[in-house]
Amino acid sequence: MNSAYSSSGVNIDAGNRAVELMRDAVRATYNQNVLAGIGAFGGLFDASELKTMRAPVLVASTDGVGTKVKIAAQANRFDNIGRDLVNHCINDILVQGARPLFFMDYIASSKLIPEHVAAIVTSMAEACGEAGIALLGGETAEMPGVYWENEFDVAGTIVGIVERENVLPRANVQAGDVLIGLKSSGAHTNGYSLIRKIFQDVPLDTIFPELDEALQDALLAPHRSYLPVLEKFLAPSSPVKALAHITGGGIVENLPRVLPENISANIHLNTWQIPPLFQLIQQHGEIPTEEMFRVFNMGIGMIAIVAKEDAREFQDVLGEESFVIGELETGDWRVEIGD
Amino acid sequence: MNSAYSSSGVNIDAGNRAVELMRDAVRATYNQNVLAGIGAFGGLFDASELKTMRAPVLVASTDGVGTKVKIAAQANRFDNIGRDLVNHCINDILVQGARPLFFMDYIASSKLIPEHVAAIVTSMAEACGEAGIALLGGETAEMPGVYWENEFDVAGTIVGIVERENVLPRANVQAGDVLIGLKSSGAHTNGYSLIRKIFQDVPLDTIFPELDEALQDALLAPHRSYLPVLEKFLAPSSPVKALAHITGGGIVENLPRVLPENISANIHLNTWQIPPLFQLIQQHGEIPTEEMFRVFNMGIGMIAIVAKEDAREFQDVLGEESFVIGELETGDWRVEIGD
Repeated sequence: MNSAYSSSGVNIDAGNRAVELMRDAVRATYNQNVLAGIGAFGGLFDASELKTMRAPVLVASTDGVGTKVKIAAQANRFDNIGRDLVNHCINDILVQGARPLFFMDYIASSKLIPEHVAAIVTSMAEACGEAGIALLGGETAEMPGVYWENEFDVAGTIVGIVERENVLPRANVQAGDVLIGLKSSGAHTNGYSLIRKIFQDVPLDTIFPELDEALQDALLAPHRSYLPVLEKFLAPSSPVKALAHITGGGIVENLPRVLPENISANIHLNTWQIPPLFQLIQQHGEIPTEEMFRVFNMGIGMIAIVAKEDAREFQDVLGEESFVIGELETGDWRVEIGD
Repeated sequence: MNSAYSSSGVNIDAGNRAVELMRDAVRATYNQNVLAGIGAFGGLFDASELKTMRAPVLVASTDGVGTKVKIAAQANRFDNIGRDLVNHCINDILVQGARPLFFMDYIASSKLIPEHVAAIVTSMAEACGEAGIALLGGETAEMPGVYWENEFDVAGTIVGIVERENVLPRANVQAGDVLIGLKSSGAHTNGYSLIRKIFQDVPLDTIFPELDEALQDALLAPHRSYLPVLEKFLAPSSPVKALAHITGGGIVENLPRVLPENISANIHLNTWQIPPLFQLIQQHGEIPTEEMFRVFNMGIGMIAIVAKEDAREFQDVLGEESFVIGELETGDWRVEIGD
């Protein structure tokens, strides 16, 4: 069939084919709360559980993964981008104290390649499955003339729930509290425009001596979810006073978002090992350290704030390596990074 | 400041400036349910109201506005695109019986122009305000090398609520029921790739004799929300058995989404006036009528299904002009469009 519509660049059959390819992966995320999903105008999610809560608060966050999509398109590897997107969103509402309920996605491209869309959505569905949430709905769009050929973009929205009294950050964040850093799993989804500029003349399959894998593998490492290790700290009795997800703007811009205005943070550089990827980026791009900390997570993807006396127990219960990277003091809402 | 990051195409200051420009419009949508919005990692929405419902069901939908964004960019008019997006999403969950609670947006471009972003978000905020919902959060992204220069894309997610027993479509949709068409306000957000192809050699400010306005004004007319006229039909006692939002795929593909598999629909062409815009498109593009009905809403943006004996009352209570455009009969899930 060669209809006028397909010749204008919108291929409805390709869209339908992509849906076929990803249907099973998406359906696998449907729990008993999903009353309607694929094919409906909107997804239906049974929220009866909220009736048992004292003061339910819905928490929602929308995000993309930045120009990491360009690296994925260039490397022709789409199997982590969906995971990046879901985990980024999970972390963004986790720092409000929320656990996720469901996820919605948007994928757009100059031309839909069903296998690529299916790979992206399947990886979203896998990440949703690991978090125990439903991939409730989504939209794919062909936008010839808006997106460059072979390029695409993804965005997603997560909706979660928290008891009002458990919302983070808590009011008792104060001078003397300790900052505990959790490892990132790479650059996550931030700084990729700078990364692409720095490595624009370098083939993506280059193996630098600093890395034990090809550049593209290091760059496409998926954004990790902190839900598995932090879920146990969402209860009212938890020592965690605040969590900061280190995304665009780095520690410098993200940590203050959970600090009172009369509090500053001191970060000590020698308390964790900056991962080789960031050292390579800094060296290759001749980027000042200050700029590096404003763009990249520098190896710390999540910061928990706890009282000094709770730090040891928090680190023990966490179940993975973490670092005391600094402390809070009275100040004017700044982050100082020093020795 | 000429940092490495801004020279790689991501201008954090421009992003911050856009936020400043739209802050007031967004804040105006905050009702007493919004506990945290701009600046937080995720938006917080007080859902205590759900505790008073018998069986609350959350309804969510994600959508974009297709290549209508290209017409907007070409005409340098961004003040309706946000409204298009919000209203499209409102209608998508309205047909499930849901009223909206809050909206989340995503705007991406090769380069953020703060005034454009502000115009888009302000129009989103206005549409949210008219629907009585909060613009709870959003994300803007600069994606050099993904989007063509001067092009942008928008996507949004709406979350609404419905009592489980009030979910549409109802189980009693059956042969003999009547189809009542509500007017569209233009091409809404569908068929714009075909429109752009047909008019590719025509200046956007052309005034065709068939239209009483410039082509770009007709093409950028905002997607209307059917919430104001249909909200009163969401109660359990309502005569409305089902609603179909006529989006991509037209009546032919959208109406079956709310029909049982053993039911077909007859649409009678002479029951409403096809608006001049669609006549112009068809004539100028030499598009067969069948294709027109698979791409465009053809003047009918929403279809309500009611029992034959309820049709007159529904039309009276509706409060605006509507048309009995057809009826349901036993069949194999098809839409026939004829005389």
